[in-house]
Amino acid sequence: MSEDYHMDPEAFRRHAHELIDWIIDYLERRVDDLPVRSQVEPGEIRSRLPEDPPSKGDPFEAILRDVDDILLPGITHWQSPDFFAYFPANASYPAILGEMLSAGLGVQGMLWATSPACTELETHVLDWLVRILDLPGRFLSTGTGGGVIQDSASSATLCALLAARERATDLESNRRGVDRPLVAYASSQAHSSVEKAAGIAGIGKENLRLVDVDGSFAMRPDRLAAQIAEDRANGRVPFFVCATVGTTSSNAIDPVKEIGGLCRQEGLWLHVDAAMSGTAAVCPEYRFIHRGLELADSYCFNPHKWMFTNFDCDAFYVADRASLIRALSILPEYLRNRATESGAVIDYRDWQVPLGRRFRALKLWFVLRHYGIEGLQHHVRRHVDLAQQFRTWVEADDRFELTAPAPLNLVCFRHRGGDDINRELMERLNASGDLYLTHTVLDGAFTLRLCVGQTRTESTHVDSAWERIRTVATEIDPGMR
Amino acid sequence: MSEDYHMDPEAFRRHAHELIDWIIDYLERRVDDLPVRSQVEPGEIRSRLPEDPPSKGDPFEAILRDVDDILLPGITHWQSPDFFAYFPANASYPAILGEMLSAGLGVQGMLWATSPACTELETHVLDWLVRILDLPGRFLSTGTGGGVIQDSASSATLCALLAARERATDLESNRRGVDRPLVAYASSQAHSSVEKAAGIAGIGKENLRLVDVDGSFAMRPDRLAAQIAEDRANGRVPFFVCATVGTTSSNAIDPVKEIGGLCRQEGLWLHVDAAMSGTAAVCPEYRFIHRGLELADSYCFNPHKWMFTNFDCDAFYVADRASLIRALSILPEYLRNRATESGAVIDYRDWQVPLGRRFRALKLWFVLRHYGIEGLQHHVRRHVDLAQQFRTWVEADDRFELTAPAPLNLVCFRHRGGDDINRELMERLNASGDLYLTHTVLDGAFTLRLCVGQTRTESTHVDSAWERIRTVATEIDPGMR
Repeated sequence: MSEDYHMDPEAFRRHAHELIDWIIDYLERRVDDLPVRSQVEPGEIRSRLPEDPPSKGDPFEAILRDVDDILLPGITHWQSPDFFAYFPANASYPAILGEMLSAGLGVQGMLWATSPACTELETHVLDWLVRILDLPGRFLSTGTGGGVIQDSASSATLCALLAARERATDLESNRRGVDRPLVAYASSQAHSSVEKAAGIAGIGKENLRLVDVDGSFAMRPDRLAAQIAEDRANGRVPFFVCATVGTTSSNAIDPVKEIGGLCRQEGLWLHVDAAMSGTAAVCPEYRFIHRGLELADSYCFNPHKWMFTNFDCDAFYVADRASLIRALSILPEYLRNRATESGAVIDYRDWQVPLGRRFRALKLWFVLRHYGIEGLQHHVRRHVDLAQQFRTWVEADDRFELTAPAPLNLVCFRHRGGDDINRELMERLNASGDLYLTHTVLDGAFTLRLCVGQTRTESTHVDSAWERIRTVATEIDPGMR
Repeated sequence: MSEDYHMDPEAFRRHAHELIDWIIDYLERRVDDLPVRSQVEPGEIRSRLPEDPPSKGDPFEAILRDVDDILLPGITHWQSPDFFAYFPANASYPAILGEMLSAGLGVQGMLWATSPACTELETHVLDWLVRILDLPGRFLSTGTGGGVIQDSASSATLCALLAARERATDLESNRRGVDRPLVAYASSQAHSSVEKAAGIAGIGKENLRLVDVDGSFAMRPDRLAAQIAEDRANGRVPFFVCATVGTTSSNAIDPVKEIGGLCRQEGLWLHVDAAMSGTAAVCPEYRFIHRGLELADSYCFNPHKWMFTNFDCDAFYVADRASLIRALSILPEYLRNRATESGAVIDYRDWQVPLGRRFRALKLWFVLRHYGIEGLQHHVRRHVDLAQQFRTWVEADDRFELTAPAPLNLVCFRHRGGDDINRELMERLNASGDLYLTHTVLDGAFTLRLCVGQTRTESTHVDSAWERIRTVATEIDPGMR
């Protein structure tokens, strides 16, 4: 502790080295042995923390010791290669370096003027991603569109819905409040964030129509068309559709082309949420997922899910940036500056809900430069292949069945023995700590989900997962094998 | 580059060490010499970046070289001790270590179950902050309240407004949309985020009343009362007041006690935004800023502004967490889990707009443990003293005048020669790169703002700033000295 209470630079260097060693040891060794899902009970971690805040400072050694002793048992290891739950939030060393640099620079990117490089690098790497994924050119910043990093797809969906709301009401909603019966649409399988956004934006959750899906859990355009017609007939104002490319439940891919055609015809804003699956488009052979995307007004996917970029990093695009900015812009005197007034710059504050923003483009830039397109393709193909291998095992085992198509890296499956057995199976597997997977309900049936996307998941981990699943299934129901 | 395209652990260790050296060299040496405000023109940074994304990976050395050569000229140095602009976004070595660990663990804190320690440490350190700042006990998680980390005060204000909206409409707004003429209130000096939140939430910016202020730029409770009465008389539904403790323009402190009394009487939700100034309450002598806070329904301040904790870290409190959760909760099947259903845990997803969340409590915990209350008090006192010293210099110089009271660490002042001279003065100072300050307009007059809060700002930096201001003022207007 230096005299002025700051950590002196030499102490920081030493502690940073200790922490880097800790991180490497954690990711390369410990995470393989720790139970993937934390095994603690509610309140257990907190009960080990001292009630009173420290009056005097503690040495860093004591803090790092408490990380091990107190916090680590309460960590569910998203970076474990045996993590197959939810969608991944994968990460990588280059991204960690990017986060470190962002923390070291400590700049604010709310305006171009508050750090031009923070804004310009972000615009640039988001244009790169348009090329890398072969997204429609209308999302490039060099035209009327452009990209921005949001914290999450939830926030991207909210921003899309707000831009759509304002476009549909000639900015009257922003100014006067929501004054007409607006109606939004998504499939019954869409992410809960669409419903949350409808609530937040003053549209009302009741005015989000959850459109029926087909046997593959993809939105039915005929049902969407019928619903829109019915709403119009009832004097309501349809304005927004959220299509999903890779639903959270089952990786279902809505028919964007058909939905987009309908949206054009009806004058509705089309947002496409490809939170996890969007990354697949780094490989030409998976670009079918984006068929029809040229009809979308906005689009998002999360490099923080499957592109080795630490959370938070959602890439959100609009085809007409002016409509987004009109919905979210506020310019108080204390933020006025020449660059903003020149109109020659992007102020990302007007592209998001919060004002302040970190330099998140750095980690994405580090990842893209480290891996190159080639490296990203290698790992995405690898993950899809592993999931497809798993799919064939499920198909070949009489005790199990697939519950949804598995177009990419998520396999939905269940034991044929019924919901209770599947619940028990999942709970035993997760309680063992050997792997972690989560569930959903499809057509009313409790379904297990296995998603392959963690950075260091290899075939051995997927092999073991299947072996464990089969073994535990036998333990639960020895008669059926 | 290892065979599988990942960065191997030894390479990561080496590059992390290089980067730590880079950060230390940046913060200890280079940042003192670099122009505080970036001097680049719009598009300049981007023009140096290659148009095409990399097909093959680049070595880290090349990336770090580009940070120096391409990005650094485009950085406005928020961590410079000569940064007096806006509000600070100060940072510290312990916070950087916290960010590193958060990146290394790479966990998601959306649910308690997705990493119990992430949730429980957050709840715990936010309770610590209640004690450290001597905030009202109703914000403690051990009662009916509790705290959560938001990315920014903008998001906190939005969440407060949404909780208030739902309380005022019995959750009808969430369900059916905003269906009655709700009215919100803040002073004419309140942060632009209140207006932005009113737009987002479907209330309408027109339905945010900007209440008149007194000579100190603080909200006039009599005017607030009159406005509420007028709105009620016109059939409108007042529901929300945002009071500010330390406005962005001039650090004005609204009379929370009087406003709170009125809100109680009228049944309105009171949110108190103390984004920067809240930190001052670590020192008992500055706790006057929170007088009346026990009447607030919600409160926020930003450790990422003045408490040495890297952005993003806004501490947001509610007295009745149930009302916040009711406004923001969504529970799809794929997120269901036993812990959530037991009701024994906090799922912070229901306390914020996005779903996903980083482990941000770590950096705050590192800061509180490293500095202790004593260390925080030392630096806050130091910053306030430096600002007050600056204030006396302004008062003693005939050419300058104060334009607002300076209760803490922000001094608003202007040259008596008129707006053009002040504009010219600011532009020359900022263009010189020697220091960075920004402006506001108070009572119609262009006003300079000098805010002392950067981690490493010492008396020499404030001395130099004043010396530079006087010198440049003389250059502009040699007659007047």
